[in-house]
Amino acid sequence: MQIQENLRELTKVPHMATSPGDEQTVEYVLKRWTDPNSGLDDAWREDYMVYLSFPDPKNPNKVTVVDPSETVLHTVREKEKNYTPDQLDPQVVQPYAAYSPPGHVKGKLVFANQGKLTDYQELNKTLDLRGTIAITRYGGAGRADKAINAEPFGVLGVLVYTDPLEMNDGLTSDINETYPHSWYLPPSGVERGSYSTHYGDLRTPYLAAKEETYRIPVEDITGIPPIPIQPIGFEDARALICELGGKAALTSWQGGLGCTYNIGGPGFKETSAFNNSDVKLDIYNYGEVKSSANVMGIIRGSVEPDRYVIYGNHRDSWVHGAIDPSSGTSVMLELTRVLGRMVKQGNWRPRRSIIFGSWGAEEFGLIGSAEYTEQYFTKLSERTIAYINVDIAVFANATLRASGMPSVQSVIFQAARQVPAPGTDLTVYDNWMKFSNRTSPTNELIPKMGYLTGAGSDYAPFVHYLGITSIDMSYTYDRSKTKARIYPAYHTAYDTFDYASKFIDPGFHSHQAVARTAGNILIRLADSLVVPFNCGDYSEILRAYLNTAVTLYKTQLQARNISMEPLEQAVANFEKAASDLDKMIRNSDLANETPLKVRRINDQLMLLDRAFLNPLAFPDKYAFRHVIWASSSAGQPTFPGLADAYKKATLSGQASDWAQVHYHLSVVSQAIEGAASTLIDVI
Amino acid sequence: MQIQENLRELTKVPHMATSPGDEQTVEYVLKRWTDPNSGLDDAWREDYMVYLSFPDPKNPNKVTVVDPSETVLHTVREKEKNYTPDQLDPQVVQPYAAYSPPGHVKGKLVFANQGKLTDYQELNKTLDLRGTIAITRYGGAGRADKAINAEPFGVLGVLVYTDPLEMNDGLTSDINETYPHSWYLPPSGVERGSYSTHYGDLRTPYLAAKEETYRIPVEDITGIPPIPIQPIGFEDARALICELGGKAALTSWQGGLGCTYNIGGPGFKETSAFNNSDVKLDIYNYGEVKSSANVMGIIRGSVEPDRYVIYGNHRDSWVHGAIDPSSGTSVMLELTRVLGRMVKQGNWRPRRSIIFGSWGAEEFGLIGSAEYTEQYFTKLSERTIAYINVDIAVFANATLRASGMPSVQSVIFQAARQVPAPGTDLTVYDNWMKFSNRTSPTNELIPKMGYLTGAGSDYAPFVHYLGITSIDMSYTYDRSKTKARIYPAYHTAYDTFDYASKFIDPGFHSHQAVARTAGNILIRLADSLVVPFNCGDYSEILRAYLNTAVTLYKTQLQARNISMEPLEQAVANFEKAASDLDKMIRNSDLANETPLKVRRINDQLMLLDRAFLNPLAFPDKYAFRHVIWASSSAGQPTFPGLADAYKKATLSGQASDWAQVHYHLSVVSQAIEGAASTLIDVI
Repeated sequence: MQIQENLRELTKVPHMATSPGDEQTVEYVLKRWTDPNSGLDDAWREDYMVYLSFPDPKNPNKVTVVDPSETVLHTVREKEKNYTPDQLDPQVVQPYAAYSPPGHVKGKLVFANQGKLTDYQELNKTLDLRGTIAITRYGGAGRADKAINAEPFGVLGVLVYTDPLEMNDGLTSDINETYPHSWYLPPSGVERGSYSTHYGDLRTPYLAAKEETYRIPVEDITGIPPIPIQPIGFEDARALICELGGKAALTSWQGGLGCTYNIGGPGFKETSAFNNSDVKLDIYNYGEVKSSANVMGIIRGSVEPDRYVIYGNHRDSWVHGAIDPSSGTSVMLELTRVLGRMVKQGNWRPRRSIIFGSWGAEEFGLIGSAEYTEQYFTKLSERTIAYINVDIAVFANATLRASGMPSVQSVIFQAARQVPAPGTDLTVYDNWMKFSNRTSPTNELIPKMGYLTGAGSDYAPFVHYLGITSIDMSYTYDRSKTKARIYPAYHTAYDTFDYASKFIDPGFHSHQAVARTAGNILIRLADSLVVPFNCGDYSEILRAYLNTAVTLYKTQLQARNISMEPLEQAVANFEKAASDLDKMIRNSDLANETPLKVRRINDQLMLLDRAFLNPLAFPDKYAFRHVIWASSSAGQPTFPGLADAYKKATLSGQASDWAQVHYHLSVVSQAIEGAASTLIDVI
Repeated sequence: MQIQENLRELTKVPHMATSPGDEQTVEYVLKRWTDPNSGLDDAWREDYMVYLSFPDPKNPNKVTVVDPSETVLHTVREKEKNYTPDQLDPQVVQPYAAYSPPGHVKGKLVFANQGKLTDYQELNKTLDLRGTIAITRYGGAGRADKAINAEPFGVLGVLVYTDPLEMNDGLTSDINETYPHSWYLPPSGVERGSYSTHYGDLRTPYLAAKEETYRIPVEDITGIPPIPIQPIGFEDARALICELGGKAALTSWQGGLGCTYNIGGPGFKETSAFNNSDVKLDIYNYGEVKSSANVMGIIRGSVEPDRYVIYGNHRDSWVHGAIDPSSGTSVMLELTRVLGRMVKQGNWRPRRSIIFGSWGAEEFGLIGSAEYTEQYFTKLSERTIAYINVDIAVFANATLRASGMPSVQSVIFQAARQVPAPGTDLTVYDNWMKFSNRTSPTNELIPKMGYLTGAGSDYAPFVHYLGITSIDMSYTYDRSKTKARIYPAYHTAYDTFDYASKFIDPGFHSHQAVARTAGNILIRLADSLVVPFNCGDYSEILRAYLNTAVTLYKTQLQARNISMEPLEQAVANFEKAASDLDKMIRNSDLANETPLKVRRINDQLMLLDRAFLNPLAFPDKYAFRHVIWASSSAGQPTFPGLADAYKKATLSGQASDWAQVHYHLSVVSQAIEGAASTLIDVI
């Protein structure tokens, strides 16, 4: 089967961004896309010079326990244990935290839960954190935040590990419980990752990172760890945490290492062989500007070549990356093979152009896709109907999961109704509804879509920077069967073809279901006479966001003479305009209308999300411009700028913070009014 | 004749923004645009709540000379002298500096030339400016800058006047030399104006100023005078300047008041009756949020209603505003009458929609047009082909003057070739060439266009904020006959129908020539199958800017390892793309092509200028986003961001300033590359 063979080829060697293995995948994708029988109309590579961070192979990062005489009592594993030949490949990169600064720090160990600001505040009530090393577990806070939050308390260095309670459903033994016996993470497995809170190349903000582009000085980079941080396996975490002194950590901080987690004296308990010893980090990471490639391919549209549907997946992995991202790359290559063959045989050509992007250096912060959107900002803004992202195609083989703007809900549903769900006699749609559903405003039960509020994959620059209607999708878990935060081999040396084919998707049927669903959506977007967006579904979420905002904020805002009426009016105007446009499309015989009338309506649909952009609304969030979907820390299902400002104002009580609430209310009201005005009659 | 009658109607009473007279003009324009026989398809008003600044009629601003015992030795005129009943209208606003703070300051007088930073630096070499009042003349620096530049030196207040050397060709006597005997400014005439360096409503930056919109606190407004400032007539300026002590001012500072200009002791000379006396400013200006209206009117396009050509003129004046702006309003109303009648009679309807804007509160800082572009940002960005601005239609009756993006040069020329130049047997085009010309790259002599680099009228929000291809035009002077900075009654109580009809354009033939030329351009833009833009003319100016930049900067930049190659490559790519597109248009039989192919090309042309926008390039310049046409203080005919950054870096020598040069080089290179990529084949 083709997807399986694609995956086998792509995962032969590790292909971390800019590595020799990465270059092999560039060439492989190019070869496929230029194939005379099943390739695309055109394909090429685009290289960017981007700032990456690596461990030093000659001076591996070291984490040790040292006693007062500097005797090393324990050394954390430098590499993950090998169970298959994959882990022995010399190109397997040592576990590290990309963008952690180098440094040599030591101190008494404390356990800081997830490294959230509140976690350090809690510890700080009873401990002097100055001069300590904090050990934290993944989850709860962004990777970089675990160090950024620690630094103001005087913490010198941070360790981070994956707690088996959160990833392995409590299982820890590699004798018979973890990979290669199951999909669970072996004790020495370490999640790598980018420790940066921004996306895109860190040295060329808002500019494409070409050779001669201006680069900000390394010391001006923001959003990366100010102190050294290093990820370790839970076997080493257990060796450290189970020896900690001090009082027991809060119940909610306890985990699956099989001992009581103490917070640390700071440091180890008296009865421990590590008593009085420090934990020492020797981090040798270095930054380097390296050439990273996107591979681009196109199928030229027959009727509207100047309208694009973009389909993307990143190509780079941390190690072999069978699931992340090569499951998605395998799916994309199968899609391009099928579509390419139809085009080459002259049997089919889409109405609009299709652009395929095989992004580079995603793992370091969505760099390839971000640089692409920066380089072609205007062209893409003007012409792109939608972006479809399939990064990890299959997390697990239970059900489809899809996120996107509400306007694409209906086209996703249409596609999902036409694809059988593997292992069932249901459609992907009906199977999806079994796992995740909600009641629609018309009281119909429908699958529950997610929203693209974060920057978890390459949809981010399309959604947040360009304001392009986007979809992100995959096959995923049965949540009743596992509590794993993500598939356990994520970003480790165990994310291999062997792992994927044995434990994630034996038979590759879920891969195929994703390929069929995504391909169906892609063809509908590229080939429909009328762009298949439903504006009413957008109204629904704006109304829900408004209701939440009114419930949570209105009384307080009235007391401060801030009226929510403009926002209420804006949403009402949007609803009216959206409903009228939907109705007009439904009731028109557009196939028999003039081409320019159809184009006019399609332009209204295409540009709807662009109306929500405001490049100045979030000065502290890099390239977040979409005022409906921007990330938020307030944890409320409502307009993010408003929610964050409100949270800040209630905490501080300052007049200037309440002014910011009013400001964000105006920003979102005018964005929605602006969007409504693009949906009503064009003049 | 219609234009004359329009003007008579519009100038019956003063119509300063938000005054009763302004409301009369709103109703008059609305009445005209809703006329059943010659009105537009639709017309309406749009009101904004904007922050304006006025003198207090109950406490008129006062400027006096007071001796040490507080005896008043001289009082500056509060109102201009009346020569016709117009000046007696109680609605004539006292001369004042809008946005000057109120305040009561006194001090010894100094003469500070034009109030440029270098002027104060020059004075500061020999004088202690702390506690002084500076008298400055118009010109050389922006109105607000005369006070902003003064404040750091300890100056307490500023006066500003119009020097007869610069405005009256030296003539000063109202016995027989100035208005009503000629077009020259009477001795008591005072130029009013907005003393703000930003445009748009000052309290709602980047947001439309609706009733409930968030307003920044008054104290957070930037770019307005930090100390009181007041304009006065040259008769009073003479009474002050000719009495000044101290040494004689530089030759270049001397003017036309008939005495030697001393810089001040500080203060008056010993032989003066004012010896030892102070100049005192009592300023009672106040700020107020008031409702200001735009009047909007539309003609719906027949084929592409979702493509707009916008034609605008502001409606508000300082006093009667016969020239500024009612000459332009009269022209606009004549255009709408002619086009409206054709539409109402069913004889004609343009291919694209035409939007007419009668802007409010332009005199306070382009407020009506700026709020309009802020409110409808997305819609206008997506759909607007071009903006035509005719503010003052006729400065003088010698020749056409036109400014705009290079891409509209050819359509302006085509129109100008079809209109006879009044008082000549030449076309407007040939007459124009007599007054202002240059040699084109093909060695042909052509009229010389200007560029829209500033924010002098309502084109600014269209050019700089929206990136819309724009034109600004009028009839203007024979520069061999006058050195006047502008027509002498500008912003005074003498800018009346009497003045306009006797001294600016007797017979209104120049008004008519402007109406015909602008109307011709408007119809070409709205009605041509292919948008009549020439990309090659854009290449020409980019190449010229590049050549200047290379000549001025390349050696220095090479020495700092900053390569200009990306910029050179970008311009070359743009030239190639532009030339290919122009050629393709020329060689295609587009009338027989599919409508979508024509639309595709038109979209490329329409959106060309949008590609040059960068909302982050000029953080210190409000709403300046167009990287080719942004204002610049470097005084070099080249890319403004680069020029300003280079000037700053050479002055400071600091590495961080050289980094900014590199940054702006990258910004402009990528903008031009981006524009080129929108002009090449669409996929």
